[in-house]
Amino acid sequence: MWMTLGMSFVTYSTNLPEDGVWMRQALGLAQRGLHTTMPNPRVGAVVVNAGQKVGQGFHCRAGEAHAEVLALRQAEGFTQGATLYVTLEPCSHFGRTPPCVKSVIDAGIKRVVIAMQDPNPLVAGQGIAQLKSHGISVTVGLEEREARELNIGFVSRMERQRPWIRSKVAISMDAVSALATGQSQWITHDLARADGHLWRARSCAMLTGAGTVRVDNPRLTVRSIDSSRQPLRIVIDNQLDTDPHAQVYEEGHAVIFTVNPSRQLAQPFLERGVRVMLLEPDLNGRVSMPAVTKALHSLQLNEVLIETGQRLNGVFLQSGLVDEWICYVAPSFLGLGGAGLAQFGPLADLTQRIDLKFVEVKPFKEDLRIILRQPHSLEWLNRV
Amino acid sequence: MWMTLGMSFVTYSTNLPEDGVWMRQALGLAQRGLHTTMPNPRVGAVVVNAGQKVGQGFHCRAGEAHAEVLALRQAEGFTQGATLYVTLEPCSHFGRTPPCVKSVIDAGIKRVVIAMQDPNPLVAGQGIAQLKSHGISVTVGLEEREARELNIGFVSRMERQRPWIRSKVAISMDAVSALATGQSQWITHDLARADGHLWRARSCAMLTGAGTVRVDNPRLTVRSIDSSRQPLRIVIDNQLDTDPHAQVYEEGHAVIFTVNPSRQLAQPFLERGVRVMLLEPDLNGRVSMPAVTKALHSLQLNEVLIETGQRLNGVFLQSGLVDEWICYVAPSFLGLGGAGLAQFGPLADLTQRIDLKFVEVKPFKEDLRIILRQPHSLEWLNRV
Repeated sequence: MWMTLGMSFVTYSTNLPEDGVWMRQALGLAQRGLHTTMPNPRVGAVVVNAGQKVGQGFHCRAGEAHAEVLALRQAEGFTQGATLYVTLEPCSHFGRTPPCVKSVIDAGIKRVVIAMQDPNPLVAGQGIAQLKSHGISVTVGLEEREARELNIGFVSRMERQRPWIRSKVAISMDAVSALATGQSQWITHDLARADGHLWRARSCAMLTGAGTVRVDNPRLTVRSIDSSRQPLRIVIDNQLDTDPHAQVYEEGHAVIFTVNPSRQLAQPFLERGVRVMLLEPDLNGRVSMPAVTKALHSLQLNEVLIETGQRLNGVFLQSGLVDEWICYVAPSFLGLGGAGLAQFGPLADLTQRIDLKFVEVKPFKEDLRIILRQPHSLEWLNRV
Repeated sequence: MWMTLGMSFVTYSTNLPEDGVWMRQALGLAQRGLHTTMPNPRVGAVVVNAGQKVGQGFHCRAGEAHAEVLALRQAEGFTQGATLYVTLEPCSHFGRTPPCVKSVIDAGIKRVVIAMQDPNPLVAGQGIAQLKSHGISVTVGLEEREARELNIGFVSRMERQRPWIRSKVAISMDAVSALATGQSQWITHDLARADGHLWRARSCAMLTGAGTVRVDNPRLTVRSIDSSRQPLRIVIDNQLDTDPHAQVYEEGHAVIFTVNPSRQLAQPFLERGVRVMLLEPDLNGRVSMPAVTKALHSLQLNEVLIETGQRLNGVFLQSGLVDEWICYVAPSFLGLGGAGLAQFGPLADLTQRIDLKFVEVKPFKEDLRIILRQPHSLEWLNRV
């Protein structure tokens, strides 16, 4: 019981009517790597021979075998003349593993159906060209919109040189995120909170501000659900005045974005294994938003999840850098005096409002999850 | 593309599998009287003979023929041994029209399927008893939940001695209803506004406060859609200090609820044909909410639609008297300093929050319409 709003999925002409079925299976397989492939993309593959599936695979972890290689391995002995369905263009270069196109050609595959080209502009199309040069029939663009959505962060990193950035908030119906007393746990219910951890699990990094670290002392780790890895934790701490023993810095694997060059203030963080990155300040003496985006990109992050307070969310909202807002809304009213969703304004005129787009609404027991996206982010995502 | 949340419709055992189909047709017919039957209920009827529909009807306007009479009239010559499907128990007493049960008996109807009993506790079951005493087979309770929903205000007036009260608001995603400048037109888009007029058209009365009359000078009439009648307009004007020439008082058909007994201040309103009702004050010297409810009931109102500002909405929200909140939400952010949805608080603790229930979410082009209901109102409605 959910709905997707205003997303127009392009339909493609394909060679065979069953192509769509196999490609959707491949997309489903790719999903199994949702929490683990980063910084690599999630990829799934299916090998079909004479209408029968003879092999399938998905990419699980960077450094491990690619989806198409696993599928071909499983299909051994039945690959001659078969069709390979793969959600991303097979690689043509030696990375941590040998190029996949070689395995495809060696296996005697006759036809390859690809959901989307490699989004890396430097190599895009090279795998396809090699396949074709070996007489293999190639179809590209089947379920492309879904394939982009699946790797929204990876594709963004390759095409836009920046991660896909989400901000997650939990609010009441009157958009209150915390009472004036600071009380904010829990506005929404169990199911919505568990869903929140799924967004963490698929993210390369979490991002918060110094204020949230001081007030809530969050861990920003994936809990509630099984996960073999934890996202990087990033704190915007302009003056390096958070407590180096805050929970977010435990277990290392954390980064601070700051504008304060003090080696002395940085020292206790460095000693805890936290990386401190000095960024350019904006006119208010806080890390500038373009600098934050650049720094996030330099860390090779695909999807970044912001969980922070109304002040920093206000800065992010105004910057236009947050692609997606994940809003859990409780059917409650909390009244005046509390914290809001994103602090900015006041506006002099309605024309100054910030317009996003609703893309999905889904009930989570008592609560709703409402997803909004930046119009320009949607425009980029939909250009297929 | 819409969804109904958390409404569990009771399923009924019925005599015949096609009963549900005919009753849903009768409910559909009843809907045609949505904007016109008040203060009467909306009723639809279908006559079926040997599996064929031979007549149908719906109640259109108080004083005009009842649905079952119209259906029987259309079915003339084919009513002997037929089944009558009707969304409300046929009346057994002389009102503005002769009792319907007499027509049913005279027509030779063999079986009557009724969605719900008459909700008026004084006459409930009398029509059914009369039908049974004439050897007619009677089934009651098919699609009862839908039938109650259809006449939510009428049923409320009969069972709870008060109308079904809705409040309609248009807000941004950060729950701002107007900028500090007072600018509020238009936060939501065309389609959402047109839908708003449908709620007005089905309401017996509109209700607003003196502040809204002063700031927005609304007409509170049904526009955008065809409608042969206009709802009564009610203004809570505690001190009788609104402008008697405000648009809401034009064309008469308006009522003021006040605590100010000044005959002199009332005079200009009375001269314009506006009725002035003196109500009991609360401790703050404003009309007390129980007094408002009683006054609304005395006006024989089924459904009342509140369109007002954050102050009065806050009073209504806290009173628990609003059964339903119709929230049009735009995918926009308007920031600090504006008016909210309902003013109350601040709360000392999260446990003091006001909890409602989401019952429906529906997209209206760019906007969402989110409907919430009071838990106790839902409990009343669901007791079938």
